[in-house]
Amino acid sequence: MAKKYVYSFEEADGLGKDLLGGKGAGLAEMTGIGLPVPPGFTVTTEACTLYYESGQSISEDLKEQIFAALLELEEKTGKEFGGGDNPLLVSVRSGAKFSMPGMMDTILNLGLNPTSVAAIASKTNNPRFAYDSYRRFIMMFSDIAIGLDKELFDRELDERKQLKGVEDDIDLDAEDMIFLSEKYTQIYLAETGEQFPDDPNEQLMVAVNAIFGSWNNQRAISYRRLNNISNDLGTAVNIQSMVYGNMGSTSGTGVAFTRNPATGEKEVFGEYLINAQGEDVVAGIRTPYPIERLSQDLPDIYSQFLNCANILENKYKDVQDIEFTIEDGKLFFLQTRTGKRTAQAALKIAVDLVNEGIIDSDEAVMRVDAASLDQLLYPQFAPEALSVTAPAATGLPASPGAVSGKAYFSAEDAVIHAQAGEDVILVRRETSPEDIEGMHAAKGFLTARGGMTSHAAVVARGMGKTCIAGCVDVVVNETEKFFTVGGTVVREGDEISLNGTTGNLYIGKLPTVPASMTGDFGIIMKWADEKRRMKIRANADTPEDAKAAIGFGAEGIGLCRTEHMFFDSERIYQFRKMICSETLEQREQALAMILPMQREDFIGIFKEMNGLPVTIRLLDPPLHEFLPHSDEDIKAIASELDMPIDKLHAIIDGLAEFNPMLGHRGCRLTVTYPEIGIMQTRAIIEAAVESQKAGIPASVEIMIPLPGSSIEYEYCAKIIRETADEILRLENIDIDYMVGTMIEIPRAALTSYDIAQTAEFFSFGTNDLTQMAMGFSRDDAGKFIRDYLDKKILEADPFQTIDQAGVGLLVQKSVEDGRRARPNLKIGVCGEHGGDPASIEFFHECGLDYVSCSPFRVPIARLSAAQATVQSERQLSMSHKNQL
Amino acid sequence: MAKKYVYSFEEADGLGKDLLGGKGAGLAEMTGIGLPVPPGFTVTTEACTLYYESGQSISEDLKEQIFAALLELEEKTGKEFGGGDNPLLVSVRSGAKFSMPGMMDTILNLGLNPTSVAAIASKTNNPRFAYDSYRRFIMMFSDIAIGLDKELFDRELDERKQLKGVEDDIDLDAEDMIFLSEKYTQIYLAETGEQFPDDPNEQLMVAVNAIFGSWNNQRAISYRRLNNISNDLGTAVNIQSMVYGNMGSTSGTGVAFTRNPATGEKEVFGEYLINAQGEDVVAGIRTPYPIERLSQDLPDIYSQFLNCANILENKYKDVQDIEFTIEDGKLFFLQTRTGKRTAQAALKIAVDLVNEGIIDSDEAVMRVDAASLDQLLYPQFAPEALSVTAPAATGLPASPGAVSGKAYFSAEDAVIHAQAGEDVILVRRETSPEDIEGMHAAKGFLTARGGMTSHAAVVARGMGKTCIAGCVDVVVNETEKFFTVGGTVVREGDEISLNGTTGNLYIGKLPTVPASMTGDFGIIMKWADEKRRMKIRANADTPEDAKAAIGFGAEGIGLCRTEHMFFDSERIYQFRKMICSETLEQREQALAMILPMQREDFIGIFKEMNGLPVTIRLLDPPLHEFLPHSDEDIKAIASELDMPIDKLHAIIDGLAEFNPMLGHRGCRLTVTYPEIGIMQTRAIIEAAVESQKAGIPASVEIMIPLPGSSIEYEYCAKIIRETADEILRLENIDIDYMVGTMIEIPRAALTSYDIAQTAEFFSFGTNDLTQMAMGFSRDDAGKFIRDYLDKKILEADPFQTIDQAGVGLLVQKSVEDGRRARPNLKIGVCGEHGGDPASIEFFHECGLDYVSCSPFRVPIARLSAAQATVQSERQLSMSHKNQL
Repeated sequence: MAKKYVYSFEEADGLGKDLLGGKGAGLAEMTGIGLPVPPGFTVTTEACTLYYESGQSISEDLKEQIFAALLELEEKTGKEFGGGDNPLLVSVRSGAKFSMPGMMDTILNLGLNPTSVAAIASKTNNPRFAYDSYRRFIMMFSDIAIGLDKELFDRELDERKQLKGVEDDIDLDAEDMIFLSEKYTQIYLAETGEQFPDDPNEQLMVAVNAIFGSWNNQRAISYRRLNNISNDLGTAVNIQSMVYGNMGSTSGTGVAFTRNPATGEKEVFGEYLINAQGEDVVAGIRTPYPIERLSQDLPDIYSQFLNCANILENKYKDVQDIEFTIEDGKLFFLQTRTGKRTAQAALKIAVDLVNEGIIDSDEAVMRVDAASLDQLLYPQFAPEALSVTAPAATGLPASPGAVSGKAYFSAEDAVIHAQAGEDVILVRRETSPEDIEGMHAAKGFLTARGGMTSHAAVVARGMGKTCIAGCVDVVVNETEKFFTVGGTVVREGDEISLNGTTGNLYIGKLPTVPASMTGDFGIIMKWADEKRRMKIRANADTPEDAKAAIGFGAEGIGLCRTEHMFFDSERIYQFRKMICSETLEQREQALAMILPMQREDFIGIFKEMNGLPVTIRLLDPPLHEFLPHSDEDIKAIASELDMPIDKLHAIIDGLAEFNPMLGHRGCRLTVTYPEIGIMQTRAIIEAAVESQKAGIPASVEIMIPLPGSSIEYEYCAKIIRETADEILRLENIDIDYMVGTMIEIPRAALTSYDIAQTAEFFSFGTNDLTQMAMGFSRDDAGKFIRDYLDKKILEADPFQTIDQAGVGLLVQKSVEDGRRARPNLKIGVCGEHGGDPASIEFFHECGLDYVSCSPFRVPIARLSAAQATVQSERQLSMSHKNQL
Repeated sequence: MAKKYVYSFEEADGLGKDLLGGKGAGLAEMTGIGLPVPPGFTVTTEACTLYYESGQSISEDLKEQIFAALLELEEKTGKEFGGGDNPLLVSVRSGAKFSMPGMMDTILNLGLNPTSVAAIASKTNNPRFAYDSYRRFIMMFSDIAIGLDKELFDRELDERKQLKGVEDDIDLDAEDMIFLSEKYTQIYLAETGEQFPDDPNEQLMVAVNAIFGSWNNQRAISYRRLNNISNDLGTAVNIQSMVYGNMGSTSGTGVAFTRNPATGEKEVFGEYLINAQGEDVVAGIRTPYPIERLSQDLPDIYSQFLNCANILENKYKDVQDIEFTIEDGKLFFLQTRTGKRTAQAALKIAVDLVNEGIIDSDEAVMRVDAASLDQLLYPQFAPEALSVTAPAATGLPASPGAVSGKAYFSAEDAVIHAQAGEDVILVRRETSPEDIEGMHAAKGFLTARGGMTSHAAVVARGMGKTCIAGCVDVVVNETEKFFTVGGTVVREGDEISLNGTTGNLYIGKLPTVPASMTGDFGIIMKWADEKRRMKIRANADTPEDAKAAIGFGAEGIGLCRTEHMFFDSERIYQFRKMICSETLEQREQALAMILPMQREDFIGIFKEMNGLPVTIRLLDPPLHEFLPHSDEDIKAIASELDMPIDKLHAIIDGLAEFNPMLGHRGCRLTVTYPEIGIMQTRAIIEAAVESQKAGIPASVEIMIPLPGSSIEYEYCAKIIRETADEILRLENIDIDYMVGTMIEIPRAALTSYDIAQTAEFFSFGTNDLTQMAMGFSRDDAGKFIRDYLDKKILEADPFQTIDQAGVGLLVQKSVEDGRRARPNLKIGVCGEHGGDPASIEFFHECGLDYVSCSPFRVPIARLSAAQATVQSERQLSMSHKNQL
């Protein structure tokens, strides 16, 4: 027997969204619980897959199944499809598994033709209604199924209104509608060279074809890409007998949420129009009434509606977004789906539903979109200020937050003015690693070029600074130190404001309000913390960062980048001296100056963390990021190192690299210059000793960056252990310290069994691992990654969400091999993926002990980790059930 | 029972080199076949391993075993160790599995002390001999076992000779020797603060300890690194009763080869000294006689020697390198080992041994060191010229060959003068990707800086050009266009000559002689070709390269780099126009100019290859390698593209990348600019069509570089197939073409199962795979790889010999997964490793179908591939035997 691709709503109840799509499942389930739903049937998503597999064509078998279901529908309604005295008209709607508002297309009133429209006119005794429906159908069909320009039809409508001297469609009469219907079929003929199809079966097959085809229209593809929905799911098609909200004053149509989607308040929230079709509500031609007013217009219907809404919320245990139509005093439900909501509403609704006993706390944790918390975690511009200030331009929301400051156009200027106590916004066409010092000094960055993974964007997220990238309306003149946006010129020192959450740029200074972490937020976080298996740490380089991290609920520092401590002007000077040194002696001299400064930083961090684990990474970056640029710096360093300026220039040239990411960096620096590793270990261990003496416990994890082999790791680990143990021996004190490694070179991931023989912990540096495993330079790939996403070669930006099939495979193998060698190996991740919900779920599945992310993303990570736990518990219980 | 670590030579026969080391195995085996060998015993390599495992100490158990063997030796010789009337003296020698000449250390006459020396003097009635031996022993022991400076002792000897007014040691008498022995023990006391040990047991244990310790001395480590010998093998220690060549005119000592190691002629070849110890032969104080003269001095001994040499050669079925001593008219063999030989001799010996019926052709193939063929495959400077011309300096032999030409100091000058028909040598402090055009134009490169994997070295080997890198004695002034070496100044246009095989630089032009591929060479190659499983292809970019490749026996082209076709000046101009284009139209215009030129090249290549497969890689390199530099070029391009120069500068700036290796290159170019891939496909397929029409078959493999995923690969493959099929459809012709991919991104290796669904062949780009899997930029890693080799963090330069444990793992997985998806998947390698014998063996084991290397390395690859086949057949037969 052939496979069943078509189900009536009655048959379909319980078959689920995968097969029926969201809309179809909702219709079937509403039918199942006895809600008034116009009868119909669903062509399954499997039929869509079949359609694409057979080269975008509908098989004979599928056609037969559709027409059989149609016959049944005719029997059920007692109407004849597109004919007879009482013609059956249908709506044809797409419906994928995930709600994709506005992305797919709908055709109403299908089945109308000269015969059936006349029958309807006569049966309803309302020719205006009949021909209005007819001309709407011709237009929709032409637009959606055939792809004609809607303008052509609207123009005729406008002309007719002008001719009749009326403003509103509603003021046209039956005659006008008949005229327009004829006109519309003429347009169709002129544009396509063919007669408008009168055969309702033909109309239907063209429509089904169009809906299947629309699964792959550009908008749909983009929406799926933005929302991480697989391209393989396909859409179902729902064919349903029409009901009419435009049959007079006891008819109407509306949409409503069972709770307020903006605030989460428990109150039905929506709007409706009397004597209208659904599209009139959406089109905004007439202003709809709030749903409460229905209690005056049609009180029985209103109470029936409230009752049904309640039934639906109880069935789905979540806020529903409902479409309904009232035909001649009879209420029909056309759609129900989970209602979208703001982050704030999501928190309140989840907590309320638990308190109402409808869901449990696990489910509440699942109900909040972790990524959406972003908007709650940063300071925001005061709403009153925003209501009177229009953005000057909008760029990419590259790193969230709201900051105001004075615009400066070079890293040097940013440093100088930040030191003078000003709030600085660094404005560049594009940033590069050479700007890093200025980026440290600035509060936020604005770039005219570059995407979400451009240098500015990545550094900003890493440093927790606000950034708008790729703001193309801003024309930056770095030499003359100004930018123009629209007609406005912003000069060096002028105040601007950036909203990194929306990408909006404002001229002038705007007041901010602090992050609003309400009571519901705290409750959800508490439930999440109780649930999650993974620990959450933060990436923090300074005592201030550490303090912020604790505030966001971090349980340790997963990445303390020691090089970020060097950007203070005195320090960077010594650091530069160190890397430009020619002799061991010179290098040691510079290092000796740096040692006490690093030690003080560590003491500060240990104090804030008060015994929580702190993972400190030894010097990592390519040295070229730190090379002196300015003539003064070079002069000063040359004189202090007692070398001719030419020679220093030669050393600087010699340090330049063609591919610094694959160059002399990470533990390679410790291999060539053990004295650097020794100095850093001294600073760390001496700080821990001092803290411990002051009664503050320090739990230290010293992390070696970038090894590619066990021998290389062991070479560095030995230096660290010897240095540390010597200090502890002399101090006669015991400090709880571990030595471990980053796994960020593919070879390290492949040889983790060997590395774990000695390494006490692993931390995946998924940024670098992604760079090397995929061969994408983070700093350069922005130029083509967009193209890759558009062409569907990449499903997601691999620097935002971990590439599970490639990079993820290395992570999995490394975890397995590492734990095989050392069952209690502590494993975490400290790349940017540590703050990405989809990646966190993957890390949970890999069995990681913790993720580490920027402080502001800690709450997101806490929630994501809890969701991953619930998710895997559910899968486990599902597979148990399947086994029974 | 404790493990046996000590074996007498009789017991040890047949236990093999792994356990006994080469020297010990030879002594045991010579003992076994009845040759006269002074009795002794061997402490095994396992004892050395134990020594290092127990923190460099000798266990009590081992000591006991040594002394037990010593007791047995005393019984066997009827002598008493270091005492009695007839004292037993021993030599203590190291002996590892692989011969490591000069690397490990030997102590003779151990057991001498005031008592035993007196006994010997009295027994031999030759006090001069006795005390000469004694003072030599004290010096050797002090030098080797204790580490005192040999100078201290030599000074005393020289003073004594001056005092006595004699020139030669031999002219000193017994009294002098007694004096020196006393003096030497005084030096020992003064330097160490301890008495020289008189106890022979103590002497022995110190010596054994020193030999075990010397396994890890710097020289030994370096030798092993250079020769790819594992550090884990350990050395054995051979303790053997002494015999003396310095007991008068019927005594003597010598070394000999059973055949001539320089030419391979079948004639005993060696030298000896009468009345001398082994070290006298080596030290070169007296001039030894050729071995033939022994037939006059000691005819019986000579014929006994010839007889034994013959027995040894027959036993080992190979040329033997023999040490012997004649004591008082009695011949003793002290060592036999496989004789080292030149490449030319190796060929002749192998062929002769087959003709003599001693070995078969498989074994002959194994007998030639593939890498050594290098010296035979390139033109050489004429020996007569070399005999009168001293090198001006010696750098690193970065890429073999011998070339003369005029020195030029910039890429631009090199291009100009090469176009004027001059032979150009490009001289630079260091080259960079920006010099690539000049490198193409030059015959060879000389750089003052950089190592064996520097940019110049890698590019030279890739292009098959001669290169001396890191020639530190050359001081280059690029601005003033001259270099100095020693006192000589070489200016622009002066002739110089480079020997890239030795690293020697000469001033002036030297005549060359062509490569000498003798008859034996051809015979061995024939045997190798009959044996090997893998095909050998060449990397060739031009018809000339292709012709050379065929000459060297290539069976196809494994890598034709289309970008190397662009370096002709007209072409590079169009190419630059293309990459600087702003619009599709501009790009297509430039591409249209390039199309016919590429097509002509391909026609030329197909003609040379005449039906052999040709793998053509689409455009691969980072575009920054091609950017225009000179003002004229920029001006011309700007005018032709009709854009302001400023704008062109901005475009060029925009194309610059921070990490070009991980940037916009490879198939990423085809994804963003499909028109490039389309043009190249057109050129390839049109050339194939034209060839086929002209009666020349073309077997085309179009290769997509750098994909990281199956989707990316398929995106490009689709463009290629559509373009190709359209041409073939219009031409109505059938061409045998395949589309496949390079595997050079770790992610591609990890997802090979998916890629092989569509890709018809794989070619490993192990250069890039190594760069990304290990995180080493080829252009930058030279700066620290040396350090990594010195510190034993790397066993070999991973760009020379594939890193099996990491990069190799990716290759293996990719082969397995690829073949799982497509059992007949054709798989090769086209990185530099394709010409490296150790890597070729690995690729054979992985099951690759072919390797591709530079034309000059094709014979090496043919031989290596045959050796790998023999090797694995032997292992298979061994494991069959073990199973029975």
